[in-house]
Amino acid sequence: MALASMAADPIALPSLQLSAKYDSLHADSARTNATLQAACTWGNTPDGGMDRLTCNNDDKSVRDWFISETKKYGCHHRVDEMGNIFAIRPGQNNNLPPIGLGSHLDTQPTGGKYDGILGVICGMEVLQVLHANNVTTYAPVAVVNWTNEEGARFPPAMLCSGVWGGEFTAKYAQGRQDPEGNSLGAELKRIGYMGPTPCSFEANPLLAHFEVHIEQGPILDVAEKPVGIVRGVQSIRWCNVGITGREAHTGTTPMDRRCDALLGAAKMIVETNRIVTETEVAPRGGRATIAVINSLPQSINTIAGKVNLGLDIRAPADSDVALIEKQCIEGFEKICKQHGLEMSFDNFWVSPALNFDPTMVSCVKQSAAELGCDIEIVSGAGHDSVYTSRKVPTAMIFVRCKDGVSHHPAEFSREEDCAAGAETLLRAYLRYDDYIRRSHAKM
Amino acid sequence: MALASMAADPIALPSLQLSAKYDSLHADSARTNATLQAACTWGNTPDGGMDRLTCNNDDKSVRDWFISETKKYGCHHRVDEMGNIFAIRPGQNNNLPPIGLGSHLDTQPTGGKYDGILGVICGMEVLQVLHANNVTTYAPVAVVNWTNEEGARFPPAMLCSGVWGGEFTAKYAQGRQDPEGNSLGAELKRIGYMGPTPCSFEANPLLAHFEVHIEQGPILDVAEKPVGIVRGVQSIRWCNVGITGREAHTGTTPMDRRCDALLGAAKMIVETNRIVTETEVAPRGGRATIAVINSLPQSINTIAGKVNLGLDIRAPADSDVALIEKQCIEGFEKICKQHGLEMSFDNFWVSPALNFDPTMVSCVKQSAAELGCDIEIVSGAGHDSVYTSRKVPTAMIFVRCKDGVSHHPAEFSREEDCAAGAETLLRAYLRYDDYIRRSHAKM
Repeated sequence: MALASMAADPIALPSLQLSAKYDSLHADSARTNATLQAACTWGNTPDGGMDRLTCNNDDKSVRDWFISETKKYGCHHRVDEMGNIFAIRPGQNNNLPPIGLGSHLDTQPTGGKYDGILGVICGMEVLQVLHANNVTTYAPVAVVNWTNEEGARFPPAMLCSGVWGGEFTAKYAQGRQDPEGNSLGAELKRIGYMGPTPCSFEANPLLAHFEVHIEQGPILDVAEKPVGIVRGVQSIRWCNVGITGREAHTGTTPMDRRCDALLGAAKMIVETNRIVTETEVAPRGGRATIAVINSLPQSINTIAGKVNLGLDIRAPADSDVALIEKQCIEGFEKICKQHGLEMSFDNFWVSPALNFDPTMVSCVKQSAAELGCDIEIVSGAGHDSVYTSRKVPTAMIFVRCKDGVSHHPAEFSREEDCAAGAETLLRAYLRYDDYIRRSHAKM
Repeated sequence: MALASMAADPIALPSLQLSAKYDSLHADSARTNATLQAACTWGNTPDGGMDRLTCNNDDKSVRDWFISETKKYGCHHRVDEMGNIFAIRPGQNNNLPPIGLGSHLDTQPTGGKYDGILGVICGMEVLQVLHANNVTTYAPVAVVNWTNEEGARFPPAMLCSGVWGGEFTAKYAQGRQDPEGNSLGAELKRIGYMGPTPCSFEANPLLAHFEVHIEQGPILDVAEKPVGIVRGVQSIRWCNVGITGREAHTGTTPMDRRCDALLGAAKMIVETNRIVTETEVAPRGGRATIAVINSLPQSINTIAGKVNLGLDIRAPADSDVALIEKQCIEGFEKICKQHGLEMSFDNFWVSPALNFDPTMVSCVKQSAAELGCDIEIVSGAGHDSVYTSRKVPTAMIFVRCKDGVSHHPAEFSREEDCAAGAETLLRAYLRYDDYIRRSHAKM
């Protein structure tokens, strides 16, 4: 799923010292990468990429493998009605919900080996470190494989973490269909992964949620840092812009007597770009893109009478997204006036800016600092952590990916960077577990 | 079909006096308009428009009607292998090919009652005037219904006058298919209009071709003149522009690290408009339009990686069309450089500027002058006359249409303007017949 990452100014957060007893624990690079490759046994493609759509037979195989592997590290399993799998390793205080370490094993149809998969594998590496060192943490821990994060087979994206977080009902999500008309519910039953646990925070809570994910952007690659601290998620608005002009012959209609909807649309695309590159929102990380365009009647000798545009606006601050939208509307209205066009503007989706839990972010920050990494990033929406953050403290760790490329077979993160992601997750998670232990000791 | 009309400076042409014996002959407004309405008995739509695609049952009905009506005015008929119908009224010298008065009875699927139909009806009015006044002209005359001018069912447009004029082979044209896979040849057979006459100038010649057509543009409406003298046809080039950028996430990709093919395309659309409104070609009637756009992958959060544009360039002079194309390529290349884009530019169709036969244009001019009309227009391509002009002297008369609207149910020409078209055709045609008689007398 798309991210809206950008470098952010660091903010001060409280120190969270790792217990001395945990200090010698480290992720194993070779093991992390071997587990990653094992997870790509099913659904890999000759070009080095992955094609593992939700609930296909490869997805069933990797789920079976995930359960059998995590059993080896002392886990029992809970599968909910959306197929989300919780591999739970008990702690000292099993009255507490587990701390979740989650991401997803499904991929885009022409995806890579890192988007989602790396996050689950880093969680599995944490389990292996704990198991190998006979560590019993304070709270239980659960590595979570969230179903259908990509939404590539069953739109929308992040569907099943969305059910858990209260965004969608299970009924709605189970009824989502692929292009052949198969429902997600039927397909979960077919592969044996419609579990008995209700899918919700209330019925099956976590205490917190950490997620490792590739950055899907170029910031870490440019900065030459293996991992980044995700401070939150950008604010996003999606809008449909409808432009109505007047169809007329390209040959017979003088240039000054036209109401050319496509010319108007073109000026709107240029204006949108100008707003986020030349006005006050530019240095504050405002972004706006028009990537969807439809024009009618698509005849080379008939001036376009109707054009629709899809507008994607992002910025770290909600106020900047609102400002960009306002500037777009004002600019577009001027263009319409100039060209005799009518406009409809529909802001059909809003995702407010999200700040991850300061304590958890601090755990990530201190763990990243041990690897010499201090870059803080504001991510776009589009991870399972967006929906977990509605219910529980959440934080994310980004791992560098080559050239920022993702959703493509060329998606690549170096072995040492994958290991750095696991190491940061391990130590951030242990810091947080210590923090929970200390909090309970005070009570 | 689209026209590229524009007002042109008048040019001097020789005087062609109408014989005194013809001077009392005039078109009848009521009769012209009654014939027009009768021709719209088949295929009219509740919104006042027409939907009579080539070779549908309504097209068969109007063809049957055309033959039975023109028989009443002393015509015999020739139907060629493309279904073009020649209603021939003998003259004094039947060794000569007939002078053609042609246009088309097919319409756009959401067309009007005037585009094409008016031209055939004006020809029929000429026949009626001759018949009612017992006039035998010098050369025979043929009112021609050209098949599939619109190309709406069987692309391309002007298909069967194109076969007659040598642009297409009959085999190619008969093999053209509608979206359901029916071929034009099979459909001509089905409705009984695949005639025995080979379709070519050589096998079935005309001496000349006059055509009345609605202007499909606003010049006459703005000038408040019922008819205009068509001096020729603009030069046209059609080009495909392919733009390749790099797909990337709208959320993760900084504004200065994008290769946004749609932003580049938008700037090209704006640049194209600038060239024909702000540079030297503007006062010389240059026009350029982009009305076709396709963008991939059409996902609101993925920057467009591939865009295709269809570019339509017109001007009265070939040199200006070439200049506009050159300016576009230069401007587009700069945009590509600025945004890291690749471009392909394919000029896939050229229609050079066409000047109609000076003697015939003079006949039209003097006849239009009798109605107080002196506006000369350079039309766009897209009439059957473009292809007849490849073989025989050709001229056209434009009739005013409301607001320049055509290919739309709202297409409208006033009764008096339709009659003015018939009157201008009648007298221009008679002038030309006189001219032929005088030429032969000299020999």
